[in-house]
Parts: sequence; C-alpha cells; structure tokens
Amino acid sequence: SVPFSVLKCHAYPIKTSFPLEDVIESQQFNRDLLNGIFEVAQDMEAIERDASSPGSSMLKGYLMATLFYEPSTRTRLSFESAMKRLGGEVLTTENAREFSSAAKGETLEDTIRTVEGYSDIIVLRHFEGGAAKRAAATAKIPVINAGDGPGQHPTQALLDVYTIKREIGRLDGIKLGLVGDLANGRTVRSLAYLIAMYPDIKIYFVSPDVVKMKDDIKDYLTTSGVEWEESADLLEVASKCDVVYQTRIQKERFGERIDLYEAARGKYIVDTKVLNVMQKHAVVMHPLPRLDEITVEVDNDPRGAYFRQAKNGLYVRMALLKLLLLGW
Amino acid sequence: SVPFSVLKCHAYPIKTSFPLEDVIESQQFNRDLLNGIFEVAQDMEAIERDASSPGSSMLKGYLMATLFYEPSTRTRLSFESAMKRLGGEVLTTENAREFSSAAKGETLEDTIRTVEGYSDIIVLRHFEGGAAKRAAATAKIPVINAGDGPGQHPTQALLDVYTIKREIGRLDGIKLGLVGDLANGRTVRSLAYLIAMYPDIKIYFVSPDVVKMKDDIKDYLTTSGVEWEESADLLEVASKCDVVYQTRIQKERFGERIDLYEAARGKYIVDTKVLNVMQKHAVVMHPLPRLDEITVEVDNDPRGAYFRQAKNGLYVRMALLKLLLLGW
Amino acid sequence: SVPFSVLKCHAYPIKTSFPLEDVIESQQFNRDLLNGIFEVAQDMEAIERDASSPGSSMLKGYLMATLFYEPSTRTRLSFESAMKRLGGEVLTTENAREFSSAAKGETLEDTIRTVEGYSDIIVLRHFEGGAAKRAAATAKIPVINAGDGPGQHPTQALLDVYTIKREIGRLDGIKLGLVGDLANGRTVRSLAYLIAMYPDIKIYFVSPDVVKMKDDIKDYLTTSGVEWEESADLLEVASKCDVVYQTRIQKERFGERIDLYEAARGKYIVDTKVLNVMQKHAVVMHPLPRLDEITVEVDNDPRGAYFRQAKNGLYVRMALLKLLLLGW
Repeated sequence: SVPFSVLKCHAYPIKTSFPLEDVIESQQFNRDLLNGIFEVAQDMEAIERDASSPGSSMLKGYLMATLFYEPSTRTRLSFESAMKRLGGEVLTTENAREFSSAAKGETLEDTIRTVEGYSDIIVLRHFEGGAAKRAAATAKIPVINAGDGPGQHPTQALLDVYTIKREIGRLDGIKLGLVGDLANGRTVRSLAYLIAMYPDIKIYFVSPDVVKMKDDIKDYLTTSGVEWEESADLLEVASKCDVVYQTRIQKERFGERIDLYEAARGKYIVDTKVLNVMQKHAVVMHPLPRLDEITVEVDNDPRGAYFRQAKNGLYVRMALLKLLLLGW
Repeated sequence: SVPFSVLKCHAYPIKTSFPLEDVIESQQFNRDLLNGIFEVAQDMEAIERDASSPGSSMLKGYLMATLFYEPSTRTRLSFESAMKRLGGEVLTTENAREFSSAAKGETLEDTIRTVEGYSDIIVLRHFEGGAAKRAAATAKIPVINAGDGPGQHPTQALLDVYTIKREIGRLDGIKLGLVGDLANGRTVRSLAYLIAMYPDIKIYFVSPDVVKMKDDIKDYLTTSGVEWEESADLLEVASKCDVVYQTRIQKERFGERIDLYEAARGKYIVDTKVLNVMQKHAVVMHPLPRLDEITVEVDNDPRGAYFRQAKNGLYVRMALLKLLLLGW
Repeated sequence: SVPFSVLKCHAYPIKTSFPLEDVIESQQFNRDLLNGIFEVAQDMEAIERDASSPGSSMLKGYLMATLFYEPSTRTRLSFESAMKRLGGEVLTTENAREFSSAAKGETLEDTIRTVEGYSDIIVLRHFEGGAAKRAAATAKIPVINAGDGPGQHPTQALLDVYTIKREIGRLDGIKLGLVGDLANGRTVRSLAYLIAMYPDIKIYFVSPDVVKMKDDIKDYLTTSGVEWEESADLLEVASKCDVVYQTRIQKERFGERIDLYEAARGKYIVDTKVLNVMQKHAVVMHPLPRLDEITVEVDNDPRGAYFRQAKNGLYVRMALLKLLLLGW
C-alpha cells in the first residue's frame, strides 16, 4: 500500500474527514481509499439520474474554477458537468495559456493565488509536468490535477479502475491486456500502477516494438508481485483477458517518421475478429479519443465499454468534488 | 404540408408529447407545429420578463451542451440565455474545432456519444453540411442544429417566421421582399421555404445579378402555389410589401473579385428613401450582422424590426428547449 | 468633487436609487459615492464567506454577459465570480474579437443591441478607447467598463482605493509611492486621479526616466491641492509611505529598444531591502500580473497586500453589480 503524499500544509486546513486535500497523482491512493471513492461514485449514478434528488444540490454555493492551460474539451466538460450535476457553479477558461496573464509572464503560483480568491476548488490542466503539484503547494483551496503534460492524469486512472470494477464486478484476479502505445501512454502507465495494488493480477503487453512498455513500470510490477508478459498475438491475449485496454498510437510522437507511425498504427486493431475470441463477460476499454484502432462495429457489441467508461469519468469526478469539498 | 422526418430511432425514446426528438431542418415543420411552437414562444416572453415566475425554473436540473465547431457568438449566447432564462444550466465550447479531440481526428459521432453522457440536450454548430443529422442519428438525447455549414439553420428560419407573425399579426397573405444575397443566403432560402406553407403569399426577389435566387427555390414556390417575381426596383417593391427582408452581401463568396463584391454590395441599400415609400404597418428585417446595407437612420424608425427579430430568437429557442425536454 | 457624467438617456430608465446607470470612467465617482460603494463592498465580504446567507441569492434570475473583445482571464473570472457569489448567472465570451460578428464587420453598437436582448447587464472589455462609453450610450441595460484599451479601467481604480482603505484604515492623509511604469500605466493614473479627492494626500513618483508620470496628471494633482514630488530613491520613499504601489514595466511599449526595457525593468525592485525600511503598518500593492519587480520573498510578509488587493476586486465588483441592478 502506498502512503499518502502530504502535498501541502494549508494555512487554513479544510476540515473534512477525507484524507486528501488535493488530487495530484496516482500515488496518493491505496485500496481502502479507492474502495471508498468508488462507493461514493456509485451513489453518484443515482443522483445523476434524478435531478430532483437532494444530492443534486449538495454543492450549491460552491464555485469550481477550471483552469485549462491546454485545451481538452472532453475532460473539461466532464468536470463541469460533475460540478453542475451536484448543484455547484463553474468559472471556466478554455485556453488559459493564450488568453491569460501567463502570456505576460505571470507565474503559475501567482495565477493560483489570484484564482483561489475567486473560487472554492481549482481543476488544473497544464502543459508542464509537475504543474499540479506546484499549484497544490500554493493554493489554500483543493486542487485537482486534470492532466499535467507528460506527468499525471489521476482522475483518468481512477475512472479506468472504477470501470473495470463496474464492468467485471471485481478488481481482484483481473487479467488485463494493455494494447497500443504503451511507451507514451500516460493512461496505461497509471492504470498498471493502480491495478498492481490488487491481488492476483495478470497483465499482457501488446504493442508495436517502437512503443513498448518501459522498464520502470515492468520493474514496479515485478516488485509488486504482479505477473506480466509481452505478447505479439493480440487474438491469444484477447481470448484470455477480462479487459482489453486499447490505446491510440500518438502520431505526434513520431515526428517526421510517418512510415514508422503508419506501421505501428495498423498493427493491432480491435475488430470483430478480436471480439469473436473474447469471453462473454470481457470488455474492451479505451481512454478516447479513438481513431481506427477500434473499428466502429465493436461499438454495437455490449462488450464495447469505452463510452460507458467515459461516462464513469463523470461519476468519479462527482465523487472527488464531493469528497474534497464536503468530506465522506 | 411536409411530413416529419424521422431522424433517428432512440434506444431510449424520450417520452414527450412533442412530435420531434431533434430540430435539424426546416422540413420537419408544418403549419400546425409552427403555430404550436409560436404559442409557446409567446408565453416565453412573459417568463423572460419576470424572473420570479414559476416558468423561470422549469428546466432546473437540465444541462445543455453548446458544441460549437465554428464560432458564432450571437447564436451561442442566444441559446445559452434561453436555457438560463428557464433555470437550466450550460456546458459551453466556444471553438470545439480547434480545442477538442476533433483536432486529433475523433469523429463527430464519438464526440457526441461522449458529450451525451455529460448533458441532457446538445446544441450543435458545425462547419459541415449534414453534421447535425449525423449527430442526431447518434445521440440518445435531443440535438438542435444551430447551423451546419452550407446546410440548415432551422432556428433562424423559425424566428424569422415568428417575427413576421408578431410584427404583422398574421402569416396568411404576406407580401415579402427578399433583398440582397439570395444565392448564398441560407436564411432567405429557409424563410422562402417555410412561408410557402401559408396561403396567398407573394414574394419579390431583389438582388444583384451575381447573387440571384436559385431555381430550386423558385421551382418549389411555383409548385407550392406561391406567386413570386424578380424585380430590380427596390422602391417599388418596398411600397407593396409587408416585410422587406434585407441580407448582407457576403464578401467571402466573391474570392478575388472585389470589384464584383463592391458593385453588388452598394446596389440595394435600405435607407430613409426606402422607409418613406413603405407602408405604416410594414417592417424591415435582417438576420444580422449587418454592414451598411441598412443605414443606421432606419434603427430609429419603429419599422426597423431587426433587433426585435434577434430578441425573438431567444423566445423561439426557449420554446424549443422546453418542448424537446418537457413536451407540450 | 466631480459631477456625474450623464452618459445616456435610457428609453426605459432603470429605477434604482443608485445614481449611476453605468460604470464607465473614474470621473463618475465622488467621495460620497465611493464611501457608499465601499460600505456595500465590505458587506460583500461577509456574503462571500457564507454561501448560505440570504445575500448569496440576491441576484438570482439576473444574467450578466461578459463581452470580452480582448482576453483578460483575471478580470473576467473576477466579474463572473462576483455575479455567481450573488446567485446570478453568466453568459461568457473569452475572445469576442476573433469569434464574433465583429470579425464580419458588425459595429459594437449592433452587437450591444443584440446582447442586451439576452442579458440584464453587460461587462465589456474592449481594445479601443471610448468603446465602453459608446456601448453605454447604446444599451438600455447597465454597462460596466472592464477596460477599454488605452482608456479607462474604473473597477481596477475602485478596488485600489478600497484596498488602501481596508489595509490602512483610512483614505485621508495617505502617503502614496507610485513606482515603475508611470507613463503607460492606466492603473496608476486612475489611482492618482481618485485619491486626489481626499485631503492631505502626498504622492511620490519613482520611475525610470523613460516612463515618467505625464504632465496632465501632475497638473491635475497640483490644481487639486495634492502635494507630489519625483524621487529616484525608492528606499527613502518607501520609508515614508503608507502605500508603495509597484507596477510592471510593459515590454510591449518599448518596441525594438529591448536595451531600454531591460534598463528600466531592473531599476526599482521591491524586495526585502525595501520591506526593511517600510513602516510596520505600510503595505505593498500591485495591480498584477507581476514579473520580478516584486520579489517572491515579499509574498510572505504581511505587508505584501497584492493578493488581498486582487481579492478586493471581487468585493468591489459584487458591490457594483448589486448597486447597478438593485440599487442601494
């Protein structure tokens, strides 16, 4: 189990029973905490379905600032929907990098000290790794990391684990196939990290050679007692797994080597052939956006879970907003 | 009368008595439906004036996503005001084309399936004709087309007809002068289409030769029993009409032929000379924005109806949001 | 005392007891009016701290449009937070210049006449001096100037004076050091103008030669009976003042003369040496954003008042929204 990082010493600590003051990185979570968050997330499903329930106004009077230095419509709308589904209000910036004082040379810390005067919680998306930690160290109000460059995107990791639990019914003994860009994918790295907390996990890595999983995660899994292996046979892996987690090959990582990109991109596609060998209870996940690494036929199969996964992002973010502002 | 297009088969059909699940194109409307919508729109005028009326919170708990792939501040603010005047909430994107996953190659359908998880109704503005129909076919929640490229902009067409009704007091027997860019103007084409449903309509086309009304609409009017004629004499037409509907000559349609643009632009101006021949009950309309095709002197005459027309967009959109979400 | 400018004749005058219909320029304010606004601003501090107080919903049902033709995230978020802390709602544009009909050649007046149909109060940021006055002359609803190019930024001036009052406890007999870019700084010019209404004021100008305070303000101060002097010795000035008001040297004013900019920029820095000579009750202010003209060590000293000053912008804007929409 991973100890909580104490990221800051609040001048005026928020008095809630929730052990975290900010959500910055996956390392802040252990199994008990994840289980607690997931229970709240599941309660949120009922609140979202019924706008007249008392829970729908639990954050009335609270103001969330979404400070996005890098546009990400999906993540922003998901957080803003989460806040509004709980009766809270939102201040929004779609492109803080271009439109704000950052363009005049203001430090992130100064921006945070201003914005914390106008809001109750800050959701930060930034292009620099470590930005969220710096923001949290400055702010007296809670900060949620909505992705900081090559760094972390912890709410994505939480929603991925939550989705496995909701789709498969458990987290122990999961067989997980990670497919696609495993070298650059922030998502698969965080997911491997979190799932390693559970017993009897088996992970298969299926990726083109140029974007293989890096040694740090492999070493971490080995140390944590997680079985893993690399495979070039997607069909065989798919037939064994509970979850096939596909990812997009990111063109921008290949620079001028378009030939390498094209080769990598076409190598492992999840299509009906893959579906046909998968078990009935198994699911296909994807952090989205997808290009053609999952064919659209898969959308119509109940095992295509990626849009439900996106929706789970709403519930997990509702839970985190509730917990950071109101406690358990 | 035009049959309703059945645009999609909802997996979970919304149970309202309103016959439309989405608002995508003018062809969805017939006279009875327009009359019903206009009655609701008129009720909305009272609700908008009195924020303490119960109607002002009829959409409390509902969340509208304005997904704008092409910026259009006027249309966006009008929809967002409509939603908020009824107590609803808004998730907004000012420039989804640049800022969203579309830039990474995500399909519109995938974006819609994600955003429908975060909201209750989607207002879509897109740069491609047919985009709204594709979105509606995908979404399980209602979609309103707020303009899709060279395609349709049905709420503009509705507010134009509503304005004629409110200003002139009827829709039967209207004499309508369409002036300016009739070749490229989406607005005048849709208006001609809708007004043709009413009896005893007479339409005059007044436009520079390079931007004359196209044959498809002329043929449609003839088939529908609508009298129409072309004229080069704006003063004569203005003296006969109930409504002079002026439009902007769109520079971007002329490419490098700035000479043709300048000639077309200056040819038919609505000014005090035109006002002086107009009847007392007649009005000047314009979809806005205007450049100098209506002089500012006309603003001060009670027959200058274009800002009231813009305001009517609010009432019509309030009505559509109410009807799509709550039914009659 | 300065007479109120009567900026427009409302067709339907808003019936409130507040003497201003719009907030456009510092010249609209006199001492009595400032005192009244500051009392309301102080009440707002309590409302902001307690979201369950009745005051937190005093603007329920009101809709503010933030029409920003020039991005300014700090100012925009501050206004939007102010509106939401009072229970009001917001329509927002982050970049109206690029995204709106202005790009198609629509006049500001036409935009205003449209937007006033969708909202109850307009907050305008514009790149042209005089834009706010033109907007106010057009609109039937209140307009607040949130900065118009080289023109005015009256709410910044009000929050500066309010901060002096809150920090020092009075406005009479203040000794004020204005430091940095005094030639181009809209802020320091407005502050000098407003503070001159109070008795026994002494102002010190400390600036590099290339950006010295201009004669118009010096003449105005002399005429108003305010003592002022120029000094090149920041330490001596700091030791005498109640308020050291530092400003950023604006690189964009120097064009290609980077050498002049660098020389000016490094000349007067507020650091611990300055703090050490300042009196215990004195404070350092800055309109933000700052670069390195105040070192970060000063942030930790209670006399560093600039983030409290930014927060005071919230209270002053809450007060103005309340007063313009509801009256005293």
